[in-house]
Amino acid sequence: MQQFISLSYKYIFVMQFHAQTQFSLSDILKITPFDDVLTWSGVSAATPTEEMNGAGNLMDFLDEPFPDVGTYEDFHTIDWLREKSRDTDRHRKITSKSKESMWELIKSLLDAWSGWVVMLLIGLLSGTLAGVIDLAVDWMTDLKEGVCLSAFWYSHEQCCWTSNETTFDDRDKCPQWQKWAELMTGHAEGAGAYVLNYFLYVLWALLFSFLAVSLVRVFAPYACGSGIPEIKTILSGFIIRGYLGKWTLLIKTVTLVLAVSSGLSLGKEGPLVHVACCCGNLFCSLFSKYSKNEGKRREVLSAAAAAGVSVAFGAPIGGVLFSLEEVSYYFPLKTLWRSFFAALVAAFTLRSINPFGNSRLVLFYVEYHTPWYMAELVPFILLGVFGGLWGTLFIRANIAWCRRRKTTQLGKYPVLEVIAVTGITAVLAYPNPYTRRSTSELISELFNDCGALESSQLCDYINNPNMSRPVDDIPDRPAGPGVYNALWQLALALIFKIVITIFTFGMKIPSGLFIPSMAVGAIAGRIVGIAVEQMAYHHHDWIIFKNWCRPGADCVTPGLYAMVGAAACLGGVTRMTVSLVVIMFELTGGLEYIVPLMAAAVTSKWVADAFGKEGIYESHIQLNGYPYLDVRDEFTHRTLATDVMRPRRNDPPLAVLTQDSTTVEDVETLIKDTDYNGFPVVVSRESERLIGFVQRRDLTLAIKNARQKQDGVVSSSVVYFTEDAPQLLASNPQPLKLRRILNLSPFTVTDHTPMETVVDIFRKLGLRQCLVTRSGRLLGIITKKDVLRHMAQMMNQDPESIMFN
Amino acid sequence: MQQFISLSYKYIFVMQFHAQTQFSLSDILKITPFDDVLTWSGVSAATPTEEMNGAGNLMDFLDEPFPDVGTYEDFHTIDWLREKSRDTDRHRKITSKSKESMWELIKSLLDAWSGWVVMLLIGLLSGTLAGVIDLAVDWMTDLKEGVCLSAFWYSHEQCCWTSNETTFDDRDKCPQWQKWAELMTGHAEGAGAYVLNYFLYVLWALLFSFLAVSLVRVFAPYACGSGIPEIKTILSGFIIRGYLGKWTLLIKTVTLVLAVSSGLSLGKEGPLVHVACCCGNLFCSLFSKYSKNEGKRREVLSAAAAAGVSVAFGAPIGGVLFSLEEVSYYFPLKTLWRSFFAALVAAFTLRSINPFGNSRLVLFYVEYHTPWYMAELVPFILLGVFGGLWGTLFIRANIAWCRRRKTTQLGKYPVLEVIAVTGITAVLAYPNPYTRRSTSELISELFNDCGALESSQLCDYINNPNMSRPVDDIPDRPAGPGVYNALWQLALALIFKIVITIFTFGMKIPSGLFIPSMAVGAIAGRIVGIAVEQMAYHHHDWIIFKNWCRPGADCVTPGLYAMVGAAACLGGVTRMTVSLVVIMFELTGGLEYIVPLMAAAVTSKWVADAFGKEGIYESHIQLNGYPYLDVRDEFTHRTLATDVMRPRRNDPPLAVLTQDSTTVEDVETLIKDTDYNGFPVVVSRESERLIGFVQRRDLTLAIKNARQKQDGVVSSSVVYFTEDAPQLLASNPQPLKLRRILNLSPFTVTDHTPMETVVDIFRKLGLRQCLVTRSGRLLGIITKKDVLRHMAQMMNQDPESIMFN
Repeated sequence: MQQFISLSYKYIFVMQFHAQTQFSLSDILKITPFDDVLTWSGVSAATPTEEMNGAGNLMDFLDEPFPDVGTYEDFHTIDWLREKSRDTDRHRKITSKSKESMWELIKSLLDAWSGWVVMLLIGLLSGTLAGVIDLAVDWMTDLKEGVCLSAFWYSHEQCCWTSNETTFDDRDKCPQWQKWAELMTGHAEGAGAYVLNYFLYVLWALLFSFLAVSLVRVFAPYACGSGIPEIKTILSGFIIRGYLGKWTLLIKTVTLVLAVSSGLSLGKEGPLVHVACCCGNLFCSLFSKYSKNEGKRREVLSAAAAAGVSVAFGAPIGGVLFSLEEVSYYFPLKTLWRSFFAALVAAFTLRSINPFGNSRLVLFYVEYHTPWYMAELVPFILLGVFGGLWGTLFIRANIAWCRRRKTTQLGKYPVLEVIAVTGITAVLAYPNPYTRRSTSELISELFNDCGALESSQLCDYINNPNMSRPVDDIPDRPAGPGVYNALWQLALALIFKIVITIFTFGMKIPSGLFIPSMAVGAIAGRIVGIAVEQMAYHHHDWIIFKNWCRPGADCVTPGLYAMVGAAACLGGVTRMTVSLVVIMFELTGGLEYIVPLMAAAVTSKWVADAFGKEGIYESHIQLNGYPYLDVRDEFTHRTLATDVMRPRRNDPPLAVLTQDSTTVEDVETLIKDTDYNGFPVVVSRESERLIGFVQRRDLTLAIKNARQKQDGVVSSSVVYFTEDAPQLLASNPQPLKLRRILNLSPFTVTDHTPMETVVDIFRKLGLRQCLVTRSGRLLGIITKKDVLRHMAQMMNQDPESIMFN
Repeated sequence: MQQFISLSYKYIFVMQFHAQTQFSLSDILKITPFDDVLTWSGVSAATPTEEMNGAGNLMDFLDEPFPDVGTYEDFHTIDWLREKSRDTDRHRKITSKSKESMWELIKSLLDAWSGWVVMLLIGLLSGTLAGVIDLAVDWMTDLKEGVCLSAFWYSHEQCCWTSNETTFDDRDKCPQWQKWAELMTGHAEGAGAYVLNYFLYVLWALLFSFLAVSLVRVFAPYACGSGIPEIKTILSGFIIRGYLGKWTLLIKTVTLVLAVSSGLSLGKEGPLVHVACCCGNLFCSLFSKYSKNEGKRREVLSAAAAAGVSVAFGAPIGGVLFSLEEVSYYFPLKTLWRSFFAALVAAFTLRSINPFGNSRLVLFYVEYHTPWYMAELVPFILLGVFGGLWGTLFIRANIAWCRRRKTTQLGKYPVLEVIAVTGITAVLAYPNPYTRRSTSELISELFNDCGALESSQLCDYINNPNMSRPVDDIPDRPAGPGVYNALWQLALALIFKIVITIFTFGMKIPSGLFIPSMAVGAIAGRIVGIAVEQMAYHHHDWIIFKNWCRPGADCVTPGLYAMVGAAACLGGVTRMTVSLVVIMFELTGGLEYIVPLMAAAVTSKWVADAFGKEGIYESHIQLNGYPYLDVRDEFTHRTLATDVMRPRRNDPPLAVLTQDSTTVEDVETLIKDTDYNGFPVVVSRESERLIGFVQRRDLTLAIKNARQKQDGVVSSSVVYFTEDAPQLLASNPQPLKLRRILNLSPFTVTDHTPMETVVDIFRKLGLRQCLVTRSGRLLGIITKKDVLRHMAQMMNQDPESIMFN
């Protein structure tokens, strides 16, 4: 329990710290020009680091040379190679111990199985949370309009479930469910009731969003936003303590419900990924294998991200591919398999909770009855172009607005901003039936094909009285007044959604943009679909329609256009490709429609890429200056390692230690005077031949430890990194051996190595730093941040090059 | 055309060479103890290497310093980093040229799009080939039994297509289709007719297999086997010229049809992957971007492998995941997207050919009507155990048999072996109706649920006359005599398949083992399924059945058991995981059955892994000694780079060049005396400080070139690698500058680097060799082969360690 308490203390501390600085994690992480060797300025002193290894002593077989050696400070980059080799060491110890006794063998088996146990737990918890969120959102969204008299905790649908009315339309108006005006004044209709309902709708929305932003602000500032940019950064090997903590998990879950219920133009898909990753992090702390190794922890988090998308859409395979394609950095095959397991467990947990009440796993279940025709590819590709343009517009406008928020007074009033945007959203949304309801309901209706029993406005077609009406496969019909009315309302909803989403994403509440993007695309797609359908009906003698659309046939499915449009817009914004198509494929369950989806997704990606390579998540990463080395950016410049390494031409020489002639005092001065994260060790300053690399943190801890515990170690003691102590005069104090904190295999490249190779090495091996040599002499050092800075510089110099990748 | 001719000459040459050595590619590649630095002994002189770059001068913008510099010899390993940086150079040149003129811009756009064009072509060709193969196999399989009188090129099904008979059973016996005995003697029934049919069945089978093995032997020895082990090796960066050539493509396609039609226990799925990869290689030659860069070529081949599985099963997503999980080595995200495109195009091409005549994409289309119940997980997991055991048995037995074939006289008579196995197969298969038909038909029947209209023996249940018979959702019924009869035949078929497959896989004809493995699992699964079904029917009062199986309900679907069994057996043999489940999921199209499939796949993998980590492909790679560095093997030993590097303690010192004091003659002597693939260049022999690395091949070419074209270069000329010529006496001949073939950024590690890190670096960066230094001095070299040899040694020392990964 002690550890729980200390953790919550820590969170309150972080929270206060952030409350003072107005949620400025991103400012903290901004690359400032003068900081060096991986020190991200500002916070290293502010976050206590001792708690990191507090959890999970359960299975700790390792005795570290000094406490905390080998851990990382907050806002630092991890060294993947070191994490991997630490895990191998641990594994080796367990394996060799397992032969000693039965108990050790059981422990080793437990250890081998812990990965699967963690996956199971993640699946169960994230599935459950997603189910609870779905149920709560349903109820609270309906609460804005009315209440169930038989049981106030029932949503509209649940309330009318057992009602006796036969048609869907009547069932919607079951007597148990009362709108607020009806309940308060007794009148269900009339201008007065409308105004009262309108007023209460806005009021509830404001209340929910105020609660959400206040909770985020006071208890867990990290709970805001979609979380995906930060998770990408964390998975690439960056430490942000508390970002995936228990407190964030709790607050994000609660505020996500509030934010979605408030009717703001945001979705729960991105935040669900964050929630699932928090679950993953939570269960990591059960096993020292994961809690003590930042590399292994990231494998679990990758799988958790897959589980998150799996429950968001009910698409386990899509979730795994999303994690692989979009989120993860290091994704070994073992993780693929485990992610798949976690995603499936999560999906089945969600299904057994059955929040949508239809035994379906997927969020938008659709079934179409007609195939598509080749000629329809033209509108599908046009929707792809629209999606690409929307993606570009959204990213540019949203980034500009977020930059404005960061740099102007606006950023100082996050609560007011949320209240204002909620107010505007609610006031504008209520009059239009397509924006009043929740966005996912809207998408669901737009995706649906008009069956014979459908009573919605969108299905108000004029029926031919002479024709028998089969349930499925209804032929194309002329549109009735309801459809034309719906078209106008949809067009207004489209403009409204486009504008308001730009301002909503990035506010200090949990907000995903899958759903709003899909809504924009679905509306546009449905409009195009109805237009094509009516054209085909009224002009079936045109050449393009002649071959496949005889009168009385069902040629065009407007719902399919909505789905294609949704895929195109989501693709334009996120630049997902395979995972997008697979998620959409899992929604419909038929290979039939993969070609339209793919045509739209490819077009949308190409159009959007022509205006800029980065998706919304990469743009936010760049805006916030996170140290993220994108695997997809290709570095194609001719620079060499020597152009990037420090020290530069006019800089002071590199701070190095010698293997056997530096004193403790020298080292302490060096640590005090510089903020480098590590120091190369050379044979002597003259020869400059490299021996190894020592981490600042390890050095500090080792000297502190030696001064306390080791007799005879004073300021003038010589520090040596060789096997044997140097030959010293008898008058000298006892030397201090530090070989065991020395990394004897530092990574080196020659000064002539092309930067593209260096970038490749940093990416694939996950290095923190790399030393530069020329014919065996140490010349300089390149850190991950140097690489990032150089890449950013090169990108700005030559923006044209991005078009040709 | 010239190039085509030279290529076919080459193939005939290779063929003759191989005919002499009895298909001994694997022998050639065996790691012999004394060869060094990546020279694979024996063949380098035998295969002409000039043809490699013959193709694709269409878009060649690059002028290489000397002809052939930067290409590889046959049976050598490629350097991924070098390939990548060459591609970046090429890309940079095109980009900078594209600004010069409109024509260059168009060329650069063409270049950017060439990847997609190649994917489209691969999809179209491999889809078409798969369709043609399916049709031909259908026809020729039926030809063994009879012929269509209306048109001899019709298969049985096509022949009876237009027949007027109403039931399926009668339609099978349509008058246009005649068995051989009926045609020849006029009698369709009776012992004489049976014997004649039997005899002709065996005769046709022998004819087909003789043709297949002869074609392989004479024209394309590389066309034998499944090809997946070799493709894995090629994709990991090994050059096997001609393995993916046009001749192999043609012969493999033809012989695959013959081999499958002959009724041997083999499938066409693995070979289809090989065929698709040949298509990929063929289209690579259209664009110098791919034909001149071995790294880029491998990206195309990865996508082609996905297209191959996509057409084999009609499962595009499964194909992509198969390529990612099982086959590919380097799989960037760009390739993921392109693979998906190629897989989809291939699948749709196949569907438009419609070889199965049912407009379905998938090989085994099934639809089940009942869900599964929790208690059924027990038999599913038992099937998983069976699959794992079968996998282990098959791999051990097959490898033992193949080793025997390689080491004894047996290997000298491949044609006789094929004839003998075909004879045995045909003689034993004919009497049993479940082995007589083609294996894929058998699997298809076993997967199917018994509908009301089914007339097969397996669906011979006793119907309750009082009950109305709905088409779907038939309740469980007691089994009739037909079912019991079928069970016996299936049990015999199971034993027969298990034994014969072990001897069939690895013969000198195209042979995949997906289908035989699935058949074994499907038979076992169906038997278990029927047993559970009958138990549930007769004992529905037992506690385990009580909750979910009331009398008159449809509780157990034996077809689902067959599918689960098939997945388990395939998983046990290949160790596929995610791709296996996804392929199976695409076959049924419902998430419903993922949990049973996954339970079986996981169990099967765990059981099989307990007996040995390697799947059948890895085992064959190891048996044949291919230089394949498996990404999945974890290296967990404590050895250091210094333990692995050459020279060893008592070896002669490392062969090095000095930067400015070696003469042309010295170099030539060094090249003649050693067979190292490259030489480190140092400042001087005394200081041993490393400058760079030069490839043997480049050095030979450069000196040859200089001797021919450059005046004054004689044997005593000094070769120098520095920027400026060394200070020489006037009497000395003109020195030869070779800096441009010097790799100034060789990869180095320190001697203290743990081997696990070295292995990781070799894997992730795809190195050929790595130099070892200590405090700036060159100590030795580690090549990919040294790494492989060391890993094999360590694995043998400590076989227990494999259990705990």
